[in-house]
This record gives sequence, structure tokens and C-alpha cells, in this order.
Amino acid sequence: MPSIIGVTMGCPAGIGPEIILRLHRQQVETGLSRPAYPAVSQRPGSSLALVPTPTSGSIPTPAPALASALTPGLSPPPTMVVLGDIGVLAERAHRLQIKVNLQPWQPGMVPVTTALNVLPLSTLNPIPAPAQPTPVSGRAMGTYIERAVSLLLTSELAAMVTCPIGKDMLNAGGYHYPGHTEMLAALCNGRKYAMMMAGKRLRVTLLSIHRPLAAVPAAINEEAVVRLILLTAASLRRDFAILNPRIAVAALNPHAGEGGMFGDEEAKIIAPAIARTVAEASGEFTVSGPRPPDTVFHQAARGDYDAVVAMYHDQGLIPFKLLHFQDGVNLTIGLPIVRTSVNHGTAYDIAGTGLADHASLRAAFDLAAQIVVNREMTNQ
Amino acid sequence: MPSIIGVTMGCPAGIGPEIILRLHRQQVETGLSRPAYPAVSQRPGSSLALVPTPTSGSIPTPAPALASALTPGLSPPPTMVVLGDIGVLAERAHRLQIKVNLQPWQPGMVPVTTALNVLPLSTLNPIPAPAQPTPVSGRAMGTYIERAVSLLLTSELAAMVTCPIGKDMLNAGGYHYPGHTEMLAALCNGRKYAMMMAGKRLRVTLLSIHRPLAAVPAAINEEAVVRLILLTAASLRRDFAILNPRIAVAALNPHAGEGGMFGDEEAKIIAPAIARTVAEASGEFTVSGPRPPDTVFHQAARGDYDAVVAMYHDQGLIPFKLLHFQDGVNLTIGLPIVRTSVNHGTAYDIAGTGLADHASLRAAFDLAAQIVVNREMTNQ
Repeated sequence: MPSIIGVTMGCPAGIGPEIILRLHRQQVETGLSRPAYPAVSQRPGSSLALVPTPTSGSIPTPAPALASALTPGLSPPPTMVVLGDIGVLAERAHRLQIKVNLQPWQPGMVPVTTALNVLPLSTLNPIPAPAQPTPVSGRAMGTYIERAVSLLLTSELAAMVTCPIGKDMLNAGGYHYPGHTEMLAALCNGRKYAMMMAGKRLRVTLLSIHRPLAAVPAAINEEAVVRLILLTAASLRRDFAILNPRIAVAALNPHAGEGGMFGDEEAKIIAPAIARTVAEASGEFTVSGPRPPDTVFHQAARGDYDAVVAMYHDQGLIPFKLLHFQDGVNLTIGLPIVRTSVNHGTAYDIAGTGLADHASLRAAFDLAAQIVVNREMTNQ
Repeated sequence: MPSIIGVTMGCPAGIGPEIILRLHRQQVETGLSRPAYPAVSQRPGSSLALVPTPTSGSIPTPAPALASALTPGLSPPPTMVVLGDIGVLAERAHRLQIKVNLQPWQPGMVPVTTALNVLPLSTLNPIPAPAQPTPVSGRAMGTYIERAVSLLLTSELAAMVTCPIGKDMLNAGGYHYPGHTEMLAALCNGRKYAMMMAGKRLRVTLLSIHRPLAAVPAAINEEAVVRLILLTAASLRRDFAILNPRIAVAALNPHAGEGGMFGDEEAKIIAPAIARTVAEASGEFTVSGPRPPDTVFHQAARGDYDAVVAMYHDQGLIPFKLLHFQDGVNLTIGLPIVRTSVNHGTAYDIAGTGLADHASLRAAFDLAAQIVVNREMTNQ
């Protein structure tokens, strides 16, 4: 039986349903629903894409460092199952004239090949019009996430990929969380987690996220830096199958503080944190920094590092979106479950028009599938 | 008589002398010392490179918007003159086996084609060894800059391009300035000026530069934002011959403050400043913002804007260096003189070894030459 990846439908009035339909259509048409997923070291800048290529049947050569951990041959490709609402999917398919065979699915069943398998968790009636979410659709959206996590914790799903939610309606529907990630962490009882943005050329983790720039320096503390470096290293090893990852830690201040002239967080906080992680690394990973922010992302993108630990939202997201605006994936690291997400919102302005692009969902699904295989192959 | 661009030699113990020799060699060998400089609108993302292509003799077609301002035909190409030390250049040429004909030059003379024309402003003896600057070499380095500015103010030079200096030795040599730009501003008696980083895909101006991140919010005030937008617009029109430039202003906070949840500098300071400049623009330029920092650089790089006004050092330099690490140019805007600079330091670690790359000097020279022609052609 193949591994199953659950895709939560997100807001029923957003673009989630239609990008799922488009991804499924593409998988059916190109055979991408049954690719081979060799477990290989994924260094940014290498020729290996996150989007797997359909296999010709030959056995891929694994990266040498991983050879001992590998079972020869191909793993069965992970399969998509949607956690959502069959009626909504059917209505959007009809509206946008996307051909689909919708197949109800329940845990334990083998998904039907060529159909779009759906675990029905709501039967919204009336079907919400595009861009018209309601508290009822918000409540439904919350159940998709809740159920996905519970199926992950019982191993009935191997990973989850989330479509965008509207936070207002999530709360109006009775789920009181500031966002997706916090909800997932609470459902998993996870306390040490972080967001990684992953693309072919650059991976970035963020120490602080949604706070004013003026409040960023107060968020930089030694424990948080140590924790994020260790989470980043663990994910690179386990999720990306990079046995000896090279991590760079960005400084907070220009020129990494220029010897204290432009700030002292580097000397007082970041450097001691790095020193602690180096002591813990036992040769399993390397950590470099604090490095001047204006060059470290260039260095990582050209292949010097496998990930950059960034101190604040825009420090990490400006370079990430510059390189990966279309195909960037948001990966939650540190939780007991595998979760990737699209890199965009509900896009109510184009929902239902057929303009939505499923590139980010495709990249998120393919990365989740790759992580599932990497974890199986390296037995971690 | 051609326009003359003065290149200051920078620190005699740094890589300045050798990158000048290499640029000259390349100009002689490829004929790039006599290219045609059509005055054309330079939008990032267009196919027009900052590095001009040698002409085949045909008359280039100017951008339609500029046609009325153009004299038909080609302008004579600007010529390089070095402000520096003939002995140092001769020693480095010998050391690195770079063929050169060094020709002393004085203001008013027509530069000798195929020679490297040098205005001798020091006769250092002994010649400083690579990476061994002294207060005497620091003093000499200061005179190169001082003399260049005075020749620019009397129009004997059309532009200046600066090679890197060591700030310690500049001060030890009796020039008490924090850096190049401040020295130039003082010599020109300029008060409203700014740094622009210019490349083929992205142009960025910086509101604050060398200060700790924690001190950035205090530097954001309405007057400074207004001034920088206007300086940026004026430079795009005059230096880059973009008649109706489109400027984006980056926000300070993530998501441009998300309606005040992540900071209020956008609503209180940046938006009112933008509104004032829009009122002053009288159709000559457009200003958009405050825009979310994590997307605005992507939008500019794909061609939506001609420049981005950034709020702090790393906000602007992270994306700029990601795209233009090798060929970025530092342009000082707002002064009565045209000045470009290489994008790197004295590089004492490789000075004299032959490893130095002159790509940034070449880009800086070519941009200065283009600006000279653009200003002549548009009569500004």
C-alpha cells in the first residue's frame, strides 16, 4: 500500500479547491501521480529538483553517503487524498470545467488510482460562493486540519499539505488560533517547532516572524537561536537526507555588527549560541556565523550552505521570495508530523475565476512526498 | 574632445591599481574604450546592459520617449584617466605582468588613445607593498579624491569612479571622514545626497545605512523619506534617462505592518511621505507603497518598478547582492557631480596576487560613462 499524503482543502471559498483539482488533473495527465522517489541528498544548487521526474524504470543511483541506508529499488509513490468537501469540489470542477472523478475515501482504504480521493468531512449546503466564506465554512475548514493531524498521529496519513485558510473565519468557526502553524503545534502538543521556507536554491528558517521591526531585537535570545539551529540541522538531515548539513546563521545587524560599531547582538547572543550548537554537533552538521546578512543569502544560493537561519521575517523572506516566488514551499519543522504548505493565501480576488496557479501546491505536495520517502529510506 | 572620466586609484596597497590595469587592458584589447553610448531609457529587466556593446557604426534607435531630446548619431565615448601614482601602477603592472603604456596627463590635455593616462598626484617612495598601507599612502589616497572632485566642479572631468579606500589610513593621512561618500559630499558642499545600488535587474536606494537594526526605526522620518524618493526620481530621470520612472517604497515592517498589527511606521510616516511626493510629482514619476518588503524586490526585479526605496541597509542590500554580487555599482545621487564606485573593499587578502576581478570596476566605469551621455543627451 502506498503512503498517503493528505491535502487539506483550506477555505472552501478560496482557491484551495480549484488548485487541488488542477494538481490532480496534472498528475493524471502526466503520470506524475506515480513517480519514483529516490532518496537522495538534496543540496540547493544541485541539479536535483524538488519536483520529481517520472521514472523510466531504471534504479536510481543514490548519493554515496546514503547508500548504506537504502533499500535497492523504488519506493511506491505517495498518493494524494483530499480532506474536504466533495460537493464544493464538484461545484468548482463544474464551474471551471475541470474533468474529475471524485471518489469518497476512508482511512484504511487503498486510494483509487486516477480518481481524486476525498475524505468527506463537511457537506456544505449551500456551497459557498467564491470569496464568500462564512462561519460555517470556517468551522468546516478547521475540521479538515484537525482530522488530518489525528490521521497523521495514528500513521494513517504519512504527511499533510495545507491549502490556504482565512484566519478570520477560522476563528469565527470556533478555532481560536492565530494561524495554521500554531493550530498544528497545539494539536500535536508540539512546543519546539519552526517554519522553514524551502526552494531549489535556498532554504531559510526564521527566528522571529510576525512582529514589528522595532520589536525584533528583543526576540533574539540565546536559547531561541540554539533551538532554531538544532531544529534546522535535524530537518536537513531527516527531511532532506543531507547527512552533514552546512548551516549559516545570519547576523542581526549590518556587516554582522562591524565589531560592535553597529550593534552587539552578534557578540553577546548569536555567537555564543552558535558555539553551543557546534559543541553539540558531534560532526553531524556544521554551523557558520554570525554572517553579514547582505552576503550570506548569496553564498547559500550559490551552494555554500544548505540552509540559512534568519533572525527576522523580511531578512529571510526577501531573498527567498526573490528566488522562489512561484515555487516556494513552507515547511513546518520540529513537529512529530510532516507538514508542507502552499506559499500563498486564499486569493479571494481570483477565486472561482480559473486564474489560480497550482505551482506552489504542486511544489508543496512534491516536497512532502520527497520527505516521506527520505524519512523511510534513512529510517529516521 | 571626448568626455573624460576620472578613476581614483584608491588605496595604493589595495587592489585598486591592479583592477585599473586590468580594465585598461580589456578596453585596449576589445575596443571597449571606444564604444558608442546611445542615450536610451534604462529599465531594469530590459535587454539593455549597463556594459555597452561595441558599435558596428550604425546609428542606434533611441527609445521613443527620448527621441525629441536626442541629437542623431553617436556621442564620442568617454575616456578613462587615472588620478593616482604612476610609480605604483608601474610596479603592479610589472609584478603581475600586465602590459601597459603609462602616459602622464594634465587637465586640458587630450588623453592619448591606447595609453593609460594618469594624472600623477603622488610619487610614493618606497612603493607600498600589497596590503601594507601607511599614513603616507593614506594621505596620497585622499588627494586623489580631493583633486577629482575639484576637476569635476570645474568640468574638466565629466564623472568620477572610485576604487576602494581603507578608512583607517584615510584618517591617519589627515582626512577625517567616516567614508568616501561623506568626504565627497563635504567637498561638494552637498547636503541632500544618497547612495543608490544599481544593477541590470534592480536599483535600490537606502534611507538608513550603517546603524544597528535596533536603531533603524528611529531613523525613519517623513522628511527623510520624502527627500529620498525625490532624489531617486531625479536620478532615474537624469542619470538613467527614464522619463517617467516608477518608484516603489518598501515598508519597514513585515506585511507593511498588516494594518497596524506589526507596526505603525507605515501609516504614520511612510504613507504620508509618499502622498507628499505624489503631489509633487506632476506626472513626472509614480510612487507606489509602502509595499510589503518580502515581495517588492521580486516585483522590481521582474520589471514592475525602476527602483525601490529601502528603509535600511540589509533590506536593500540582501536582494541587491543576491542579484548583483559581481556586477553591482554604487552610485552617489544628489550631488552636483557624477560618481560611481566599485562594490567591494580594498581586498588586502588578495592584493598583488593577481586574483582580483575587475568586473565591478568595469560596471562602475560603464555606468558612469552612460550617465555622462544620458545627461548630455537629455540636457539635464
